[in-house]
Amino acid sequence: MADEVILLDFWSSPFGMRAKIALREKGVDFDLREEDLSNKSPLLLESNPVHKKIPVLVHNGKPVCESLIIVQYIDETWGPESPLLPSNPHERACARFWADYVDKKISLGRVAKASTGVALDAAKAEFIEGLKVLEGELGDKAYFGGEKFGYVDVSLIPFCSWFYALETLANFSIGEECPKLEGWAKRCMQRESVAKSLPDQHKVYDLVLERRKKLQAQ
Amino acid sequence: MADEVILLDFWSSPFGMRAKIALREKGVDFDLREEDLSNKSPLLLESNPVHKKIPVLVHNGKPVCESLIIVQYIDETWGPESPLLPSNPHERACARFWADYVDKKISLGRVAKASTGVALDAAKAEFIEGLKVLEGELGDKAYFGGEKFGYVDVSLIPFCSWFYALETLANFSIGEECPKLEGWAKRCMQRESVAKSLPDQHKVYDLVLERRKKLQAQ
Repeated sequence: MADEVILLDFWSSPFGMRAKIALREKGVDFDLREEDLSNKSPLLLESNPVHKKIPVLVHNGKPVCESLIIVQYIDETWGPESPLLPSNPHERACARFWADYVDKKISLGRVAKASTGVALDAAKAEFIEGLKVLEGELGDKAYFGGEKFGYVDVSLIPFCSWFYALETLANFSIGEECPKLEGWAKRCMQRESVAKSLPDQHKVYDLVLERRKKLQAQ
Repeated sequence: MADEVILLDFWSSPFGMRAKIALREKGVDFDLREEDLSNKSPLLLESNPVHKKIPVLVHNGKPVCESLIIVQYIDETWGPESPLLPSNPHERACARFWADYVDKKISLGRVAKASTGVALDAAKAEFIEGLKVLEGELGDKAYFGGEKFGYVDVSLIPFCSWFYALETLANFSIGEECPKLEGWAKRCMQRESVAKSLPDQHKVYDLVLERRKKLQAQ
C-alpha cells in the first residue's frame, strides 16, 4: 500500500514551507491541505492538540509537529540517498545549531507587527543583526552546509518570501545589508523544490498589510 | 589517543545538567569546567561566539552548543548500545517534540524572577499548566519513552532540582498538582547519572533568593 502523506498548512507560513521543500527534495507525493486558521480543522486539532498550529505532517495516520522536527522526520524517513542533514555527528550538530538560531533570532513577525516607528526601527535593527550573523556563517560557501543544499538552507530560505514585504514596510534593503545571503537565496530559488514551495512575495506583502490593518483596528 | 571531552558549565543550569546526565549515561569521562558567568572564559567565548552561553561541549577541540543539540550529539557519538533517542523515526519525532515542549513551555526563570504577587501567580499558573500537559503525556508509563530512560527524561529531569525553590517561593506543591510526575522524578533520581548531575535543592533555593535580592536592588 502506498504511503498516505498529508500536510496541514497555511500558504504564507515559512514553517509550512520548510515541510513542503523537504518533501519535494525527497520526491514524496503529498496531499496539501490548506487550513482556515480562524476555523481549524478537526484533523489539525486532533493531530496537534498541544500547540494547535500548522504545519503538521500526517504520515499513515501518525502526526508529526513542529517544522524542524518534521524536516528531520522527512530526512530520516525518505530518500537516504539525498540526505538533508550531514552524516557526521559534529556537522549534524552544527546544522541543528544554525536552524535553531533561525528559529530563535529571525523573527518576521516582530518587524511585520511593529506598531510604532520606534518599535519598527528596533525590530528592523534586530532582524538585520540576526541576518548578518547568518551572512557571516554562510561566508563564501554556496550553501550553509557547503556545496550541497541541506537542512539549514531548508530552514532559512522560506523566510526570504517575506523579505519584500518587510523591506517595503520598513524601508531597507536586505541585499545591501547582506549581499552574500542575497546570492544564496537566488541559488536556492533555482531549485524546483524551493520555487514551488515559496509564495509570491507581493501576495505576502498584501497579507502583512491586511494583518497590520486588523491589528491597528483592535 | 583518548578523546578529550570538556564541558563548560554552571552548576545550577538545568541545561548543563542535561549534558552531564547524557555523558554519564554513556559512561564518557569528561573534564567539567565551572564558568564564572560574570567573567566568562576565553574558551567559552571562542566556542560559543553566537550565544556566549553554557553549556558547551568541546570534543577534541570541536564545540557543540545548545543543550538539546549536545544531548543528541552525545547520543550519536557514544554508546550506540544504550541509545537515548528511539530508533524508529516517528518515535524520535515524538521524543524531539516533547523535549522542544519543555524548552518552550517550562520556564523556571519566569517563576523565580517574578517581582510582584500578581506576576508570581501568573507565572505559577502557567508553570503548573505546562507540567500538567507533561503529566498527561507521561500517564502511567515509567519514563516518557516507555520502559526505558531516554531523551525526554534527560531533557526534563534537571528542572526538578529547581522545584523545591519554586514551591517554597510561590507556595505550591508540584507533587499535589502532578503526582505521576513526582513518581517519575523519584525513579529518575535513582539513576546514578541523574543523582550525580543534579545539585542540592536547598543550594538552588539559596541561589534563587540571592538573585531575587539583586534584581530587587536594581
